[in-house]
Amino acid sequence: MREQILKARQAFYKIMQLSALRRAEILEEWAHLIETHSNELLAANNQDLAMIAAGDVSVSAAAKQRMKLDASKLSFIVKGVRDLAHQPDLIRVAIERTALDKDLVLTQIRVPLGVVAVVFEARPDVIPQILSLVLKSGNVVLLKGGREARLTNLAFMKLAHELSSRCPDLPVEWSLYFETREEFQQLLSFHDLIDLVIPRGGNELVQHVMNSTRIPVLGHADGVCHIFVERTADLAIALKVIVDSKQQYPAACNAVETILVDEAIATQFLPFLDAAATKARITLRACAKSIALLPSAQEMTEENWHIEYGDERLAVRIVQDITRAIEHINSYGSHHTDAIIAQNANRQAEFESAVDSACVFVNASTRFSDGYRFGKGAEVGISTSKLHARGPVGVEGLLTTKYILEGQGQVVADYVGPDARPFTHLPLKA
Amino acid sequence: MREQILKARQAFYKIMQLSALRRAEILEEWAHLIETHSNELLAANNQDLAMIAAGDVSVSAAAKQRMKLDASKLSFIVKGVRDLAHQPDLIRVAIERTALDKDLVLTQIRVPLGVVAVVFEARPDVIPQILSLVLKSGNVVLLKGGREARLTNLAFMKLAHELSSRCPDLPVEWSLYFETREEFQQLLSFHDLIDLVIPRGGNELVQHVMNSTRIPVLGHADGVCHIFVERTADLAIALKVIVDSKQQYPAACNAVETILVDEAIATQFLPFLDAAATKARITLRACAKSIALLPSAQEMTEENWHIEYGDERLAVRIVQDITRAIEHINSYGSHHTDAIIAQNANRQAEFESAVDSACVFVNASTRFSDGYRFGKGAEVGISTSKLHARGPVGVEGLLTTKYILEGQGQVVADYVGPDARPFTHLPLKA
Repeated sequence: MREQILKARQAFYKIMQLSALRRAEILEEWAHLIETHSNELLAANNQDLAMIAAGDVSVSAAAKQRMKLDASKLSFIVKGVRDLAHQPDLIRVAIERTALDKDLVLTQIRVPLGVVAVVFEARPDVIPQILSLVLKSGNVVLLKGGREARLTNLAFMKLAHELSSRCPDLPVEWSLYFETREEFQQLLSFHDLIDLVIPRGGNELVQHVMNSTRIPVLGHADGVCHIFVERTADLAIALKVIVDSKQQYPAACNAVETILVDEAIATQFLPFLDAAATKARITLRACAKSIALLPSAQEMTEENWHIEYGDERLAVRIVQDITRAIEHINSYGSHHTDAIIAQNANRQAEFESAVDSACVFVNASTRFSDGYRFGKGAEVGISTSKLHARGPVGVEGLLTTKYILEGQGQVVADYVGPDARPFTHLPLKA
Repeated sequence: MREQILKARQAFYKIMQLSALRRAEILEEWAHLIETHSNELLAANNQDLAMIAAGDVSVSAAAKQRMKLDASKLSFIVKGVRDLAHQPDLIRVAIERTALDKDLVLTQIRVPLGVVAVVFEARPDVIPQILSLVLKSGNVVLLKGGREARLTNLAFMKLAHELSSRCPDLPVEWSLYFETREEFQQLLSFHDLIDLVIPRGGNELVQHVMNSTRIPVLGHADGVCHIFVERTADLAIALKVIVDSKQQYPAACNAVETILVDEAIATQFLPFLDAAATKARITLRACAKSIALLPSAQEMTEENWHIEYGDERLAVRIVQDITRAIEHINSYGSHHTDAIIAQNANRQAEFESAVDSACVFVNASTRFSDGYRFGKGAEVGISTSKLHARGPVGVEGLLTTKYILEGQGQVVADYVGPDARPFTHLPLKA
């Protein structure tokens, strides 16, 4: 297996040099291949669905719903690939340029990252999306998909190989597929050959990957998001945002789990929240202080503030003031997405500055925390790590940087000592 | 110890909110403290030197030379702190601004990183430099210094505490010092509380840190740098750059270890290199092909191409062409800094694009690979990791980003489904 990954690294060294135009052409060819092989893809997906229906593979009810590929999903995928092909290319684009001296120019550029491993569950549209992002970013990818979409995934991989045979400058190792958990586990040990792992799936998968590799992981294990209803809040906005943040898609990582309510408005606000929650089929769980104001709620204990429900349950806690709200969020949250509902600009600014999360929102649903909604086109994932990329991550998460210094024979000895030439460090247009 | 680090995290939540002006004032106070306590600092350093002289602490000859602090070094340090105080502040500065819709504006800003651990050897000027960078970047720091500079380090830490008592908004836990290896080892296990580790010292120290923690590490274990003398090279430039890249400071990570020579010019170039090396007291080690052309060289075997000499030894290998040179660099190098000497623009471009290193130079000494020379003011370290920061890293390596979304009560439900409002994703001036 190490041999295979070494070959993938060699492939990367070729692919990272492809021009922006050439990568766009390859993406067009990729779209064309998916389009002209849709019958085979749909047939493979039908076989997967039949096996799930027959009970040969067990999946959750939610996963079952997402498993179906149809003609309209496929044409949406194809459109996505074409959109990506036409998006501005970031590779070898200068970020910064500085003249260190006359004829000695330093340029920092964006370049492909390298060998990226992606492990994903269910969702047959994940594999074409990842393959497209990898082509756009000039990387190579090691994939491990779930058993429930095995035949669909293999059908896409067949096209990935076909793409390589149609494009002689795209080595076949540009994408490798691994079927078993054992193989993937082994893969996680090659930290000297793999640059990044992206787990796309549930909490358990992400935790497992984070705990079992020295390769950097892009992702988030938890999504314990908060909304703080501050005393200057517009209460109608608060209710609307809370309901959307929970009920619009309770299983999402950016759905809200805990509402913090400023004690100054608790008596006024909580009965409204109780009614709105009941109407939206949200099940409230209340702290000892708020339980009296929330007839429909169950009481909860201190220990639960860390929990990501991922369903229609929503915790409510009364806090003394904005300082206590911020303390709660920084202690119990997962530094993913947290929002304040407030009209007072100073309180908004304090919250923005003091909450240590990837995304901090004012008067908006936590559900906006998403690559597509943020305007990134395709989303690589949402990162709660503070390094490399934080928050919703687009193609830039699959890139790194490189410094290019172009000189005419300059040496450092001329810039040190008593007669040292000074550096100019003149910023140039990037 | 966990308690202490938790306190440091609490301190970070306060410090990360300090304004740019306030951080500049604190840096001014810090410069003033060092200036007015220079006698105590020099006395402590003298005691360290006396212990080394008495053989109570064993250090290498090179480290011994760097250990001495004097009035001129101290005033250079103070000047550095004042320069840093006046450098443009990056914190809360917008990187990107996008209107997702009317009155729904997304801003990505730079923010402090968190709790940073730094372990360093010898060099009494490292500690004030790190403390200054930490104040500038709004982080908190856990420090572990070497025994050889123990009293000097403790004298600086005493001033760090004094700074906190003079600035009520700077909690005393802004910098914590650990004396023993055991404490530092324990510290490396708190990956949930510490955001970054920076080892500043030799290869062995860096390797040890990288192998014993799940905390992200900023640094480089090796510096196996190459210079490729391509067939279109100006040979005078080649000799000048090679001698500088090795002899200007052989122990540095950015010093060159291997010269690759295009076989088309080997016969012509190598005798010159032999003479230049002898004159500069560089000891050549030659591949089987080049040994005949390098009378002063020793022959070396294939196995050695990975070695970082860190001294006056320099390996020489004849390669068939630029493709082989690039293959050698990507296989045996440490992706730190590699240079080509060539006049042909296409060959320069090919090398820039195909060499997978943090710094790729054309006709310039590898020794330019340095934060100060790159114009970054202070240097946090040089990173060979592809994530977060790559190459020489300035203050930006101690920062992360945060997304701020400011709305008027918008919810995601309005942007999905058949009557979905479209996103505008309009780029705004940052």
